Parts: sequence; C-alpha cells; structure tokens
Amino acid sequence: EKLWENGVVEVAKIAKKMGEDDPRRIIHSVKMVSTLTLVSLFYYLQPLYDVFGEEAIWAVLTVVLVFEFSVGATMGKGLNRMTATLLGGALGVAAKYLATLFGGIGKPIFLAASVFIVVAIVTFMRFHPALKARYDYGLMIFILTFSLVTVSSYRDDEVLEIAYKRLLTIVIGSCICVAVCICICPVWIGADLHNSVAKNLEMIGDFLQGFGGEYFGRVVEDGDDKSFLEGYKSVLNSKSTQETMANLARWEPFHGKFRFRHPWKQYLKVGTLTRQCAYKVEALNEHLNSEIDQTPSEIKSKIQAPCTIICLESGKALKELGGVVRKWTSSSSAISHITFSRTASEDLKSLLKTVYLLEDGDLLDIAPAAAVALQLIGVVKCVEKIAEAVQE
Amino acid sequence: EKLWENGVVEVAKIAKKMGEDDPRRIIHSVKMVSTLTLVSLFYYLQPLYDVFGEEAIWAVLTVVLVFEFSVGATMGKGLNRMTATLLGGALGVAAKYLATLFGGIGKPIFLAASVFIVVAIVTFMRFHPALKARYDYGLMIFILTFSLVTVSSYRDDEVLEIAYKRLLTIVIGSCICVAVCICICPVWIGADLHNSVAKNLEMIGDFLQGFGGEYFGRVVEDGDDKSFLEGYKSVLNSKSTQETMANLARWEPFHGKFRFRHPWKQYLKVGTLTRQCAYKVEALNEHLNSEIDQTPSEIKSKIQAPCTIICLESGKALKELGGVVRKWTSSSSAISHITFSRTASEDLKSLLKTVYLLEDGDLLDIAPAAAVALQLIGVVKCVEKIAEAVQE
Repeated sequence: EKLWENGVVEVAKIAKKMGEDDPRRIIHSVKMVSTLTLVSLFYYLQPLYDVFGEEAIWAVLTVVLVFEFSVGATMGKGLNRMTATLLGGALGVAAKYLATLFGGIGKPIFLAASVFIVVAIVTFMRFHPALKARYDYGLMIFILTFSLVTVSSYRDDEVLEIAYKRLLTIVIGSCICVAVCICICPVWIGADLHNSVAKNLEMIGDFLQGFGGEYFGRVVEDGDDKSFLEGYKSVLNSKSTQETMANLARWEPFHGKFRFRHPWKQYLKVGTLTRQCAYKVEALNEHLNSEIDQTPSEIKSKIQAPCTIICLESGKALKELGGVVRKWTSSSSAISHITFSRTASEDLKSLLKTVYLLEDGDLLDIAPAAAVALQLIGVVKCVEKIAEAVQE
Repeated sequence: EKLWENGVVEVAKIAKKMGEDDPRRIIHSVKMVSTLTLVSLFYYLQPLYDVFGEEAIWAVLTVVLVFEFSVGATMGKGLNRMTATLLGGALGVAAKYLATLFGGIGKPIFLAASVFIVVAIVTFMRFHPALKARYDYGLMIFILTFSLVTVSSYRDDEVLEIAYKRLLTIVIGSCICVAVCICICPVWIGADLHNSVAKNLEMIGDFLQGFGGEYFGRVVEDGDDKSFLEGYKSVLNSKSTQETMANLARWEPFHGKFRFRHPWKQYLKVGTLTRQCAYKVEALNEHLNSEIDQTPSEIKSKIQAPCTIICLESGKALKELGGVVRKWTSSSSAISHITFSRTASEDLKSLLKTVYLLEDGDLLDIAPAAAVALQLIGVVKCVEKIAEAVQE
C-alpha cells in the first residue's frame, strides 16, 4: 500500500519535472489528442461517415502516425505519407490491372513477382544515407501501400475505390495534422536549431570567461557555482542532434525571420566550428584538474595578464556572437572583443619569446602553463573563424 | 536520351557501391521481401484465408513495419508491437464495454473522453528519455490500437472478434519476422557495437603509431597514405550511434559469446574513454598542421626518443586492446606495451625536468613541443584507463 503510494508520488514528480523542463510537451499532448478527437468525428458523425465509410478510420491512424512534436517533423511525415500513399497506391492499382491480363494462376504469380521486385528495390534504397535522412518514412509507407493494394487486389475487386477513399482520408488527416501543428502554439525545429547553435556559443563563452579566474586564481570556495565549467560538455556531442534538426527544419515553411530556403548548412558550419572550439576547451579543462599540472603560481603569474585578457575577451566575443545569432543582429562589439583578444594573443606570443632563461623552474613546471597559453592562442583563432562564419 | 542513360549508369554505380560497402544490405532486402511474400500467403491461400479473413492483411502490414536490418531492432519492434497491441486492444475493448453502460449520447462522449485522457497521458509519456529510447514504438502502437478499437467500437459491434483476429495476425507476423531475422544471416547489432568499440580503439592506435613519424620526421611524400591521420575523426562523434546500438542490442537474445544480460554499459564506458582519448588526439593533430608550431627540429629531436616510444607503444597497446575486445581474448602484450609507454612517459618527464636553460631558442619555440609531450603523457594515462575498463 505504502509502496504503491510512493510509486505514484514518484511518477507525479517525474511528470512535473518533464513538464517544467519544457512546457511545450504538455501543449503538444493536448494538441495531439484534440486533433485525434477532431478527426474521429469523421467516424462519429453520420453525414461524414456516409461519405468515407469504414475508411474514415485511416484518418485516425494517420493522425497518430504523423503528428509529431515539431512542425518540421510533422510536415516531413505528412508530405512523405501523402506522396508515398499516392505513388504506392497508383503503382499497386497499375499492377492489379496488369495482373488481370494474366488469367488463373498467372494472376497471383504476377502480383507476388511485382511485390518482390518493387519491395526489394525500395528496401535497398532505404539504406542510401541521403534518402534515409529525409525520405525514410515515405519509402516505408510506399512499400506498405504498394504491398497492401497489390496483395488485397487478389481478392478484392473494389480496390480502386478503397484506394481512393483511403488516399483521401490520409490526405485529410495529414493536412489537419499540419494545420493544427502550425496554427496552435507551433514548435519550429528551425528555431530550436537556431537557439541551440547560439546556446552552444554562449556555453563555450561562459567557460572561457570563468576559466581565467579558475586557472590563475584557484580560490576554491564551496558553494561556488561551477556549472559553467560543465556546460561545454554537451557541445562536444551535439553533432548528430544538430544534423537531425537541420534535416527536419528543411521541411518547414517560411515563418518569422526564417525564409523557405534558410541556409541551414551555415548553422551546421557554425556548429562544427563551435565543436572544434569545444575540443580545445576540453584540453584547457584538463589543466584545471590535472595532477601533472603543478605549475607554481609565480610562473603562472608571468603569463597571467595576457591569458586573462584572452579568456575574458574571447569569452565575451563568443557570448556576443551567440547573441548575434540569437537576435539576428550584427554586433560591432563582438569584433572589438576579438580584436582585443587578438592583441592579447600577440602580447602573449612576444612574452613567450622573451623567456630565454628558466629562472624559476624546469621545463616540466613551465610546460603546462605554456600549453595553456598555446591553447588560448588557438582558441582566439578558432573564435575568429566562428565570427567569420556567423557574419555569413 | 543520353542524359537519361547517364542517370541510369549513375544510379547503378551508387547501388553497386552501397552493396559493396555492406553486402548485408542486399541480403536484408531479399530477406525482407521473402518474409513479405511468405506472409502474403495468408491472404492468397484459401484455407488460411478462411481462418483469418480480411484481417490477414494486418500480417503483411506488420512485416513491413517490424522487419528491420538488425535482430535487435526487429525484436524490439516486434515485442513492442505485440505487447502494445495486446494492451491497447484490451483497454480499448474494456472502454467499449464500459461505454455500453451509458446509453444514447453518453456512449460516444464516454468513448471520446477515454481516448482523450489515455492518449494525452501516453503522448506525454513518450517524452520521457528512458521510455523514448526503448519503448517509443510500443507507446505509439498502444495509442494507435487503443484509438482504433475505441473509435471503431462506436459503430462496430464485432469489435472483440476483430481485435482478436488482428492481434493474432500481428503476433504471427511479428514472430515470423523475428524468426527469419534470427535464422537467416542474422545481423546482430550487439556484434556491430562490439566491433565498433574495437575499431575505434584501433583507429586511435593507428593515429598514434603514425603520429610519431609524422611529427618528428615530417618527410612529406606525395602518394603516402595519410588516411590513418583522419580515421580518429569519426570517433569524436560516435556517442549517439553507440548509444542507439546499445539500446537495440539489449533486445537481442543470447547468441555466440553474447549473453542475454551482456554488459552493454561497459561498451559505452570504453566508448566514452576512447572519445576522451580522441579529444587528446585531436589536440595532437593540430600540431601537425599548425602555423604557430614552427618548432625547430633540433629542439624536437631532444624529446624525440621518448615521444616516439610513447607513440609507438601506446598505439600498439590500443590496437592490442582493440584486438582483445574484438577477439574476446585477454592479452598480456597490451599490458607490456602500456608498461613500456609508462616508462617512456616517466623518462620524458625527467627529461623535461633537466631542461633548465633554453639554449636553442625561446619559450615560444619550445612550448609546442612541450605541449605535445604533455599531451602524450596524458594519452598514456588515458590508455591505462581504457585498459582497466577493457579488463572488466
């Protein structure tokens, strides 16, 4: 009894957290089920039922299968489903009429043979990466419709009418899904991608801004918020998510500031550069907790000034660039931050050139600090590249 | 005419390449379509048709939807589909009988209300990451079956019999899919994951083995095969692929050396450590093409000996570990390679300690070489961790 009660409380907590993390999830659930109810009216209401008959149930089925969280995914599935049903149905009906030319045992053999050849080819096509990324669902529905129509045409002579009604209900179902998805609190996956690119830039910026203080100051206070040191980690593995988003975003119609042929590739480019920057940040982060990095602070302090400037300025630049992406503005302050950090990076280089004599320690002591300095110089270059990509 | 001909040749080339890249794709297409033909016999053969009737078409539908490339994916979808159809159907039938308690207008209202509540809850559940990873398809089929049964029960009084026949054909269809998938040239996704983990280790090993020669020798010959320098890049972004594979592999029954509760988490752990190593390798790779890395070769030559040993030995160790994973063996030579590289790493450290005076250049010249040395020391630690994880 008690255990069961605890279970319910636990589930309620999880549900609450999921809802709070992204309230659009709750809206989506309500949207989806409202659409489903709307579509089941085709079945409940007598006048509509008279038109579509039993096949009205396919509209319900379509809603369950096509209605997705984001507009891009819903449109992709809807368009795929409509086109594939049309093509698969047409080809199936054609096979049926060809089959009637053969009498008796020839008919099922012809039907089976055509299923065999067409389905084998389309199944193989599904492995093609470009087709898989955008048309996988359509190819599956094509196989499905073609096999259903072809196989059932062996017994059923009203295939054409059934196919027509089914196509009609599927088209209606898909269109209702897309309409509801776009009109009521739409979730644009393109906007999500846009924000994710911006957020990744800002997280790297956060890290860099914090890194200088952490590395040179190292005043460890409990209760300090160190979350900025972890944020960049999600950037490292962002590639596949961003690519999926870009694929879905291509389905979306123009909306707000997103044009129809929005340059999604640019987002992926900025994303890739951001990840390269994140790899460097990962290397920097190693130095924070490394055991071999026992550089005495008097050595660190020699390079502290330019390094701190680089950290702060390139961090600011990245956050500024993130803001540029997020708000569709252009920003001169990002460029000035980059200029500052480039100057600091030149200073750092000439500072390193003046160190001829290792008065304060051996190379093993100095090397980590020097490595940090080099990484930071690399980060500056990387930030410059990102800035160029963002300008485009 | 000519253009069309070129198009055909082009498509044929792509198809040939896809087939050569992974011949299992061709086998899969043939397997899938054979299963489909087999299942459509339910429809073609009179005795079977007498039993299942129109509902036999659901077996065809099931094959198209459930039959996947790997055993894990097929079993996952099949089990999800069977369970979800059973539960959804049972709940739908229950709703139907409860609805009959209300007369007249109460019936459709009760049906619509129950669809509304159940579907909204399950749609929301689909956002839960753990459920999404393994049961997303099942939850969708549950929604589908429940809505279909509930909605159609408004008009159809034979719901119970239809639901029963449909469940039966779906179970038969799923079982045939799983049986064909396992018995004829099975593609075990668990084995694929196993090999991918091993291959990633070997690719990092390849890079390290080649890196020493590249960095210190830098004898650029055209026509040299530099592909080993690129291989590691795919490791950087392997996280999501490996996680998907592990999720699917959990569905697979025991086979060969894979037990039922195979420790897939260990693979993910080794995969994560391999990626960490790959980030370090990425940092090393920067030094190969970097403009700031203008270290004179006389400086490089000072650290050449231990660095080359580290590269070779840790490269060998990783390849050996890859072999250990791949062949299920344990290897003492991996441990000895690690010991060698650890010794070399200690040598390198003490070598760096002896450099007090920078006779040959300034710190900017030396720093990159020192950074490489430090990275290599880091790589050795990383390899040790991987070895530990592999032993488990």
